[in-house]
Amino acid sequence: MSDLNKVFNPGSVAVIGASETSGKASERRSRSLIEGGYRGEIYLINPNRPQLFSRKAYPTITEVGKEVDLVMVVVSPKLVASAVADSVKMGAKGVVIITAGLGETGEEGKKVEAEILKEASRTGAYVIGPNCSGIFSASADLNLLGVPPLKKGGLSVLAQSGNVIDSLTHYGQIRGIGFSKIISAGNAIGVKLHEYIEFLGNDPDTHVIMTFLEGIQDGNNLVKVAREVTKEKPIISLKAGRTKAGARAAASHTGSLAGDDVIVEAAFKQAGIIRLSNVDEMFDVAETLLNCPLPRGNRVAILSEGGGDNSIAADHAERCELEVPVLAESSQEKIRPFLLAGMPASNPIDYGGTAEENPHMITECVNVCMQDDQVDGVLITGFFGGFKDIIAAHVEDLEIQTSNELVDLVKKHQKPLIVHTSFANEPIESLRILKRNGIPVVASSGRAVGCLSALMKFALKRRKMKEMKLSAIEVKEKNKAQQILQKVKDDKRTNLLETEARDLLAAYGVPLPPAHLATSRSEAAAIYEQLNCPVAAKIVSADIIHKSDVGGVRLNLGTRNEVEAAFDDIWRKASKVTQHIAGVLISPMAAKGQECIIGMVRERMFGPVIMFGLGGIFVEVLEDVSFRVVPPAVHDIDGMVKEIRGYQLLTGIRGEKPKDVDVIKDILAVVAQVAIDNPEIQQIDLNPVIVHKKGASVVDARILLAEYRSIGGEAPKPAS
Amino acid sequence: MSDLNKVFNPGSVAVIGASETSGKASERRSRSLIEGGYRGEIYLINPNRPQLFSRKAYPTITEVGKEVDLVMVVVSPKLVASAVADSVKMGAKGVVIITAGLGETGEEGKKVEAEILKEASRTGAYVIGPNCSGIFSASADLNLLGVPPLKKGGLSVLAQSGNVIDSLTHYGQIRGIGFSKIISAGNAIGVKLHEYIEFLGNDPDTHVIMTFLEGIQDGNNLVKVAREVTKEKPIISLKAGRTKAGARAAASHTGSLAGDDVIVEAAFKQAGIIRLSNVDEMFDVAETLLNCPLPRGNRVAILSEGGGDNSIAADHAERCELEVPVLAESSQEKIRPFLLAGMPASNPIDYGGTAEENPHMITECVNVCMQDDQVDGVLITGFFGGFKDIIAAHVEDLEIQTSNELVDLVKKHQKPLIVHTSFANEPIESLRILKRNGIPVVASSGRAVGCLSALMKFALKRRKMKEMKLSAIEVKEKNKAQQILQKVKDDKRTNLLETEARDLLAAYGVPLPPAHLATSRSEAAAIYEQLNCPVAAKIVSADIIHKSDVGGVRLNLGTRNEVEAAFDDIWRKASKVTQHIAGVLISPMAAKGQECIIGMVRERMFGPVIMFGLGGIFVEVLEDVSFRVVPPAVHDIDGMVKEIRGYQLLTGIRGEKPKDVDVIKDILAVVAQVAIDNPEIQQIDLNPVIVHKKGASVVDARILLAEYRSIGGEAPKPAS
Repeated sequence: MSDLNKVFNPGSVAVIGASETSGKASERRSRSLIEGGYRGEIYLINPNRPQLFSRKAYPTITEVGKEVDLVMVVVSPKLVASAVADSVKMGAKGVVIITAGLGETGEEGKKVEAEILKEASRTGAYVIGPNCSGIFSASADLNLLGVPPLKKGGLSVLAQSGNVIDSLTHYGQIRGIGFSKIISAGNAIGVKLHEYIEFLGNDPDTHVIMTFLEGIQDGNNLVKVAREVTKEKPIISLKAGRTKAGARAAASHTGSLAGDDVIVEAAFKQAGIIRLSNVDEMFDVAETLLNCPLPRGNRVAILSEGGGDNSIAADHAERCELEVPVLAESSQEKIRPFLLAGMPASNPIDYGGTAEENPHMITECVNVCMQDDQVDGVLITGFFGGFKDIIAAHVEDLEIQTSNELVDLVKKHQKPLIVHTSFANEPIESLRILKRNGIPVVASSGRAVGCLSALMKFALKRRKMKEMKLSAIEVKEKNKAQQILQKVKDDKRTNLLETEARDLLAAYGVPLPPAHLATSRSEAAAIYEQLNCPVAAKIVSADIIHKSDVGGVRLNLGTRNEVEAAFDDIWRKASKVTQHIAGVLISPMAAKGQECIIGMVRERMFGPVIMFGLGGIFVEVLEDVSFRVVPPAVHDIDGMVKEIRGYQLLTGIRGEKPKDVDVIKDILAVVAQVAIDNPEIQQIDLNPVIVHKKGASVVDARILLAEYRSIGGEAPKPAS
Repeated sequence: MSDLNKVFNPGSVAVIGASETSGKASERRSRSLIEGGYRGEIYLINPNRPQLFSRKAYPTITEVGKEVDLVMVVVSPKLVASAVADSVKMGAKGVVIITAGLGETGEEGKKVEAEILKEASRTGAYVIGPNCSGIFSASADLNLLGVPPLKKGGLSVLAQSGNVIDSLTHYGQIRGIGFSKIISAGNAIGVKLHEYIEFLGNDPDTHVIMTFLEGIQDGNNLVKVAREVTKEKPIISLKAGRTKAGARAAASHTGSLAGDDVIVEAAFKQAGIIRLSNVDEMFDVAETLLNCPLPRGNRVAILSEGGGDNSIAADHAERCELEVPVLAESSQEKIRPFLLAGMPASNPIDYGGTAEENPHMITECVNVCMQDDQVDGVLITGFFGGFKDIIAAHVEDLEIQTSNELVDLVKKHQKPLIVHTSFANEPIESLRILKRNGIPVVASSGRAVGCLSALMKFALKRRKMKEMKLSAIEVKEKNKAQQILQKVKDDKRTNLLETEARDLLAAYGVPLPPAHLATSRSEAAAIYEQLNCPVAAKIVSADIIHKSDVGGVRLNLGTRNEVEAAFDDIWRKASKVTQHIAGVLISPMAAKGQECIIGMVRERMFGPVIMFGLGGIFVEVLEDVSFRVVPPAVHDIDGMVKEIRGYQLLTGIRGEKPKDVDVIKDILAVVAQVAIDNPEIQQIDLNPVIVHKKGASVVDARILLAEYRSIGGEAPKPAS
């Protein structure tokens, strides 16, 4: 575990490349450091200036003559490595490298980055950046971002991009949100994203973590760390590069690849990270997470003086996976006296125009909702705060009174309340009271619902994370798998024979249908007669991965003659392709059932990833597959089976019997375990797996040691 | 065609139920009428007050003694009908009924509504409302909404909800958007939604039409009218009630049902209506549509001083169906000098921190993009306008200069430019210049992209609408269909025999596989021998709609014996259910192909609707079906085939030959025509239709005259 505390609470800071030229990156950051209230020693380094900002400047850091804890480097690319070397010599625990134009622009820059890391590694100094915007640490009054002074508070930010930091701090400022730590990670060649998140997770001043990610590094560790952090603190994230053009922009920007967004989505889900898509939206949500009591569930009551606003909000709510339950009759009874005769009190609740003249009615209705066990949070929508403008001036006092009552209700019942009003951004006292007391007031209905949704999702995710149990399988025959793999490696092969793949899976307890290798037609016939049912025959050869393509598969062989003829035919065709034929595998035809695909690949950013899908068109046309990063939690495996669009085919439609979903989960757990135990395995394809009412038949198993290709895609060429 | 001009430009206005009690609906509206600058005569009616607002008040409208053009009615529900009666007597061309608590609350109120209509029908007076918020007409300085004075401009609004009007006018006000007409339609018992839209389409002062709809009335006419209007003017719409809770809210509010959202979505697409989901978003988009030049296509260049913002915007763009094309090499060459060495000029374009110090660089890059034929519009994202705060104060002048240059570029090239900046809502001169000149400045990246997307979508829709050709089929045997239907009606049946359904379709030119009705086993055998291929046998009986359920279908009969046995079996089983057996239909087994479903239902709100889907799990599990309101345009039919998720199965995957998509479109066109020509047909199910490489086989055809049930759902009971 890293101790980034030294970086965020340094005793002294030096700026190599300090400058006074207005508008320059180094000037802005030198100034924000000096003016930000930092209490430790500051050393400004510039070989050409004896003084900067009316302070002594040093020609080099080595002339400071004292240990320096943290060094910010803002020099041209070719000078960075020696600046880092000097910093390390002076005992720096960390270097924050602002300089851009390194790894993100090409090979030349990557070489410089390697030098930087080499220098830093001499003492284990932390490298922040390069190509970053700096850091902010409220606990040290340390502002290396070059932005105006920031309010202190519970929000911490981790972004790769530098410029987004400028937007982020500005949004925070105009909303009055305080920050604990802000980190611009830039190219993140030294300290990795997950290390920052771990640090923020442990930072007692951080209550909400906001991340803006472009590329993902070491996604496996990111998931691991975030899983722990989200047991206590919410992580919200804007992950750019979802689309082709977005990825193009991200790549040119931080030199990092965006990654397959389907995997990113799955990983975030696993990690309990809440994904958002706008910077301003992130602040709406952050504010909500910082200020609102955590709800127990996702059931929301919606109230308005206007039915139109109610229906808009209800639509948003259901789309955001919130429930808008019909209230209990007892609650409805209590609400009805406040409504126009004939208006339903079911939820959403339309208290109509009378509330505009007498807003106290809102308090009464919200009170009933807060008391109802079936309601986890409340949304008011419409134009509260503006009644005074639209109805009559004297209503202003009543609105203020109502705001105070609403604040009390939230305190008393500890359920979140969010207010959408078209007057949200105006200087209105009743709304100020709400905001001051942590009740979000939002100008957009969809955004308001989004905030409540994020809050409720976090509450549910947090519980799930706390209860999380990682999937783990005990291997029956511990060394069997390694023996098999050793043999493959000894043979300089990159793929297992199907017989080997079957043996390996069997060692992990996967129930496989019987199958026997025949090396002669008479052996094939004997196996058929022993099995005593229609069989399939498949070529087994290290050189043949796509068996069907070479005529290596024959199905539904129902007589001895058919089996013998098929054996001959398969052998003859295979002989045209290779001399290395292990035999022909004879196995019973699988009983009918639902065709599925189960697989594993090692993904560039996230490491091993397991995959599930229904076969055929579901995978090929609809891309209806689910992924999880390894190791999956037990609930992840459950989720990945349930989230596919064709899930109903497993639970039984049109009078079909439900399929054995448990056996699918068991096999997925095994595949994950195989990936963990055997890092040399690059890809596993069980395709198809026929799932029956009870049990499943793994009809074809392929295990590869070669480099990653997409599941179902072209097989890798054997290393030669 | 209605002449609502009289309502929106009346010579005199009376208010029945005028009041001075602060905050009351009638007080607000009387005041907004008086203070709104209306130039005609105003008559305030109140039996208890000789004077109101320092004017003479009349006890009843009949005592006014002169003709009154328009009457606003704000009295209790039980007095409304007589108020309308009196108004009509006084020559009113229209009545605007604010009173709520009528049809939306139940039967009692519906009776009052019927009386209102009866009274109005004596002279053909227009009824606006009831349960509405009033109207606004800039051309007459007429404000019956009870809201503060409104700016005049090119935006017109049609909403069912009253309260949403209050939000809408407020949003308009804070953004400085001017209105032409505002209409709160309320329960819309008199003038219908589509009549308002037609009126606004013809209103020369209206340039953008904004609608907020809860329920849809007469959706067929809505589509018809909107199709014409959107050839010139954009219609943007927030249609609430998408979800269950949303529909619940909408229903309790305007007494109107929300309708099946899938159909609404299809209808809006057909009508060229742009659907949005937030009130504030509607104003962003309206502003863009009012002020920006119309682009030729959907290709956008994205520029920023920050790569992070670029990737966020690019993600939004692709999700909003905008293209972010790689710029032509010639354009890239022109841009490169303005970028950091090594940064790609492909698009999105990251002009980096140097632009923050020298914003003129933005002009240069935007200029290149505007000149590029491959670019239809430009998005700037980041924090322009805030450079002065973040970089240095002296940059302010440069930002102002840049804004002026950008305004000139838009004028010169007539391509839209939208600016996203985190400083959008702040009082910054450079941003004011943009806004003043019609360049939208938006605080949210997603919202900014949404505006551009709406603009580009409208440009494309408008072109499509202008080129629209309605699908029309010439009937081969003109009277055949009606003869068949007459026979069914004469028999007091509600469903056609399959033989009749086949004959009817054949009359419209649908190519059907041969099929012959056998009434004896020997006839069945003879038909089989004549066809000389494997056949299917199906019961034909007016009493049996679900043939398989009674054992009335046998497939793949390949010998004379099989056919005979099947005939006997089918007949015997059918005899247990009914005495009315027309025979057994013998037809060749369809060749292999892609199974499809084609259908038509009469939908409650939109009238006849045609449907297309692939068969089996695509319909049953994935609900992968498309709809269009009848009559569809030729491009609609094309769209409904292409938009299904499984479309690839028709174009050919895994080496399969492409299927005959044209024949699907032909059959869809026929089904639409049948619905137009034969209003007594309530439902058509062609299921399955097997589509081949060339041609298709309509394997089963069901045509019903009974009331609507969902396609594929339970059959209606025959009327008895």
